[in-house]
Amino acid sequence: MARIIDSRPLLDAFLGVLRPLSGRVAQAVGRTPGLAILRAVENAGSAAYAARIRAAAAQAGIACHEVPVAARTDGAAGVRAQVSALSAAPDIDGILILLPLPAGLAMPRAMACMDPDRDVDCQHPLNLGRLMTGNPLYLPCTATAAVTLAEGMLRDLRGMNCAVIGASASVGRPLALQLLDRGATVDVLHIQTRDIAAHARRAQVVFAAAGHAGLVDATWVSPGAVLVDIGINADPSGRPGVVGDIDAAAVADHAAAVTAVPDGVGPMTTGFLLANTVHAASRRAGLDFTIPDLTTLPAWQALRL
Amino acid sequence: MARIIDSRPLLDAFLGVLRPLSGRVAQAVGRTPGLAILRAVENAGSAAYAARIRAAAAQAGIACHEVPVAARTDGAAGVRAQVSALSAAPDIDGILILLPLPAGLAMPRAMACMDPDRDVDCQHPLNLGRLMTGNPLYLPCTATAAVTLAEGMLRDLRGMNCAVIGASASVGRPLALQLLDRGATVDVLHIQTRDIAAHARRAQVVFAAAGHAGLVDATWVSPGAVLVDIGINADPSGRPGVVGDIDAAAVADHAAAVTAVPDGVGPMTTGFLLANTVHAASRRAGLDFTIPDLTTLPAWQALRL
Repeated sequence: MARIIDSRPLLDAFLGVLRPLSGRVAQAVGRTPGLAILRAVENAGSAAYAARIRAAAAQAGIACHEVPVAARTDGAAGVRAQVSALSAAPDIDGILILLPLPAGLAMPRAMACMDPDRDVDCQHPLNLGRLMTGNPLYLPCTATAAVTLAEGMLRDLRGMNCAVIGASASVGRPLALQLLDRGATVDVLHIQTRDIAAHARRAQVVFAAAGHAGLVDATWVSPGAVLVDIGINADPSGRPGVVGDIDAAAVADHAAAVTAVPDGVGPMTTGFLLANTVHAASRRAGLDFTIPDLTTLPAWQALRL
Repeated sequence: MARIIDSRPLLDAFLGVLRPLSGRVAQAVGRTPGLAILRAVENAGSAAYAARIRAAAAQAGIACHEVPVAARTDGAAGVRAQVSALSAAPDIDGILILLPLPAGLAMPRAMACMDPDRDVDCQHPLNLGRLMTGNPLYLPCTATAAVTLAEGMLRDLRGMNCAVIGASASVGRPLALQLLDRGATVDVLHIQTRDIAAHARRAQVVFAAAGHAGLVDATWVSPGAVLVDIGINADPSGRPGVVGDIDAAAVADHAAAVTAVPDGVGPMTTGFLLANTVHAASRRAGLDFTIPDLTTLPAWQALRL
């Protein structure tokens, strides 16, 4: 049976490491690091996600400022004005714009108003480009969480055949680049790929970021493969809660491991968002910052297959 | 026998289309678009390349300013000062930094002094990031030349299995992104890939950008594959001239086509550099600019296999 990977213990340990680094900033500048979360007021999913971030931020010693925006009353121009104002606010070190965006607002137009130094979600073209050159300023949160869990399970990804399903600018592409930085061979698959299951079967590690509930079944998985599920989808059966892109029951007899949804990649995504926020606050305070070494944490070592 | 693809006729036609667009800028601002080429004075290879660019620029109505720099006398700081000065020079619309860089200068440090609006070689992180989001300002020259020839040969790359050999920030990664933008499935291979020939054999189109003379032989090529050679290497036999990453003689009986070296991808690389320069000059002059549609040119249509 495939092992199910839950990253909540790793997040807890990571937040414990981040807390003194937040405290160091607070001591230097007289306030805790501040993260603004801008989200569409109408969306229940992003409200729940923001609440989870807020709880983790409190553990890490970071102040969260939720900024609900309504396209109907604020308009896309109003939302952009909010991003500009937050980019200049003295107590805001990082800004996260949650999807779905308010109607009428596209991410490139939102990013045009974003201070790249506060783009702790690594969505600004300047930060994506830094990632492309192998010199990232901030870590792309979801992609880094996915790679961190794969490395926890397998240690060294050099020379491994990895399939990335989904080629979005926010997840699939940054993930492919991070895997290349680690020496993996990367096959990027998507909706126009022919015989996509055959491509996926050749991979030792499959990263599913297609946004399609239960897309990956047993026919996509070679024996002993490691599966990292990045999808967060409404349950097509209508039940409350979310499901991933991988049909965990169907692959249970084939895969060596599969990450849980929502408790696999999700918690550590929040962890890297908060690490980036402490990084941003440290830079503004003139303090050095290095992402803490996760590999020394027992919770990371416990991931090993 | 594999067809050998020479892009010089396409470059000629492209320069003919660019010329009136340069002329429009000249009429608006009273001077022709200007391209600065910064290169290490000691390097014979980059001197020859600069001479080819200069000739093509003249055809397109663009003024070329060669700036030879010597690490020994200028120092890396001096070279960066040159990039800064060119970034503010009124008659310079585009800046190209040729490899190899003067000793002691790394590309990220050079790019830190570059005006992104004049980065017509698309190496600045902001421009690489724009490419990553699918909204490029300038086209990455070598990658776009390679994709343009592949599209000329095959028309539609959607769903095609493409192998990209080499994962550099300057060529392999931008190429992978541009292929994804066109709906291709992209397997990125490199020096740490295990059984790389088997990966390459699964591809219908192989892009070789490893910088290793004659790396790709018959064992890497499935029957009827299309091969795009991006390598420019000294001939290991010691003969003058350059050779590609593909052993053209070895693959001749297997491939449907292989691009020539140096007259395959090279000429159109220069073409897109000059198109970006006219684009940059047009923007500075407040004029609209759209990359001319190559697909209407008989020289492009003649590439079709």
